[in-house]
Amino acid sequence: MIPPAEIIQFLKTRNDFVIATHVNPDGDGLGSAVTLSMALRQLGKTTHLLCKDPVPKQCLYLPGQGEFLSFDTLPDGPDQTLVLVDCNDISRIHQDKTVQSGLKYSASAVIDHHETEKIFGDVRWIEPQSPATGLMMRHLVEALGVEMTEPMAANLYAAIAVDTGNFRHENTNSEVLRVASELVDRGANPTVAYRELFESWSDGRFCLFLRVINTVDIRDNIAFVTVTQEMFRDTGTGADDTENFVDFPRIMKKIDASVLLREVREGVFKVSLRSKGEVNVAKVAAALGGGGHRNAAGCNIEGDPEAAKTRILELLRPQLITP
Amino acid sequence: MIPPAEIIQFLKTRNDFVIATHVNPDGDGLGSAVTLSMALRQLGKTTHLLCKDPVPKQCLYLPGQGEFLSFDTLPDGPDQTLVLVDCNDISRIHQDKTVQSGLKYSASAVIDHHETEKIFGDVRWIEPQSPATGLMMRHLVEALGVEMTEPMAANLYAAIAVDTGNFRHENTNSEVLRVASELVDRGANPTVAYRELFESWSDGRFCLFLRVINTVDIRDNIAFVTVTQEMFRDTGTGADDTENFVDFPRIMKKIDASVLLREVREGVFKVSLRSKGEVNVAKVAAALGGGGHRNAAGCNIEGDPEAAKTRILELLRPQLITP
Repeated sequence: MIPPAEIIQFLKTRNDFVIATHVNPDGDGLGSAVTLSMALRQLGKTTHLLCKDPVPKQCLYLPGQGEFLSFDTLPDGPDQTLVLVDCNDISRIHQDKTVQSGLKYSASAVIDHHETEKIFGDVRWIEPQSPATGLMMRHLVEALGVEMTEPMAANLYAAIAVDTGNFRHENTNSEVLRVASELVDRGANPTVAYRELFESWSDGRFCLFLRVINTVDIRDNIAFVTVTQEMFRDTGTGADDTENFVDFPRIMKKIDASVLLREVREGVFKVSLRSKGEVNVAKVAAALGGGGHRNAAGCNIEGDPEAAKTRILELLRPQLITP
Repeated sequence: MIPPAEIIQFLKTRNDFVIATHVNPDGDGLGSAVTLSMALRQLGKTTHLLCKDPVPKQCLYLPGQGEFLSFDTLPDGPDQTLVLVDCNDISRIHQDKTVQSGLKYSASAVIDHHETEKIFGDVRWIEPQSPATGLMMRHLVEALGVEMTEPMAANLYAAIAVDTGNFRHENTNSEVLRVASELVDRGANPTVAYRELFESWSDGRFCLFLRVINTVDIRDNIAFVTVTQEMFRDTGTGADDTENFVDFPRIMKKIDASVLLREVREGVFKVSLRSKGEVNVAKVAAALGGGGHRNAAGCNIEGDPEAAKTRILELLRPQLITP
């Protein structure tokens, strides 16, 4: 993976950067943005970090994560350059067009590993095959000719660990493992990273998990789990606390797909779908007005959970019955 | 990590090998033994694989795992060499001294990463600092000058993945990640490995997990979970199915140690202890007549679960109260 000469040239030429990542930020976006900021500062540039939403608790152990500004606190500059990291359209850093248009910048770039159909940015570097934006950043740091310091290594290790599910997901390849090894040599601590990123559940979240996992309902090798507003109230938790719950039933060998139904409000459920191998949940989500990738997709569905399960099963079943 | 010249010389000189791993075998012992067998066959040697207990289901996807013989089916030879892999005393391959003494061999070697006080083997290579015996095997293959084939790479990747909890445990370091990356380049498939090794629970095991996790009882940042014989009967499962259950409560940030009480028979519990960081559960296990490492230890305890919890808490509490 080699960063295009155009993006290197662009970053070396410009001087005042606003580095922004997406709403509901995650370890990959946050770790990659902080690393880019640190790299550019080594080159004598001015940088500001921008994110609409707060840094989630599990990422606060990472150096530099306290520097993120909101749209309200970001200082103006006469010739600022906007760099979107781990997303590729301005709508991903703030949905509100009024706020977007209030953000002044004279040039823009995009560094991302998500597929896209939108066109934003004067310079774009998008690698849909890359398991994480953090992996792209590793190569960018090298191409910029700056040092991979310990704080940068810790941020990029977290970025890669989060987007590969700590080397569990299907995007784990030899390069991911090799770069992770290099980052540990540069000072990233895998034990601290795992503990902070994956073993930092609150008591409430654990209680929520117990409630949710007890709702497991297996039909035709599809596992359904359900979260209700009542469970959130009882355990003092919120939607963020359900992250990765949908993955858990996959631990059973016979499960081909796993579905989390999260009650958004009475009669409306947000549906998260995960599958193994060839089972395509993106098709199911698309048929219900949502979208995603083959093995991870989502949509909204109206009605009660029973009706939702029936509808999803109707759509998934043809894929499960092999001739 | 460099294999001693003595062990290389020994393996090159001898011709007919019995490669044995420990009772209740795991991915590290099995994968390392199969890899050593394949390496020695490349050198024209005769090898037999030996394990008292059957290969667990989750390891059967690995090439060569069907070749393990039991003590009953192992053929005799006039000049056999015994190599213990992932263990370092003959009592670890069969507890019965009569069976042990029936095993004829003219020389013996040990390749292991466990600490020991026993002395067995004409040649010993023990690396207590190595995260897995599989990692030692990677270096042995190189030192023997044979090719790391795809079947060997798959076995060693599994060995390393199992002993590091898929790069989660505190023994994960840059070498582990680098070697894993190399093994993927040699044909190991991380997606298949994760799915087979960690996502192959039976329905019964999942039901058992639900029963066990619902017993969680948190006292002074120590989580206790309990498995009874009744739960095994109800779910059609056995002791093997509780593997890693003790790790689950660690997912809570506040938990310093996690304890699984498994009823062996009425009034007798096998205790598994896990801790984070500096909390030393080996001391607790030792005080109760067991043993282990700082972060993973075990012992047996008599009485009812409530008394067992009280006793363990008494022993652990002094470590939790910082001055």
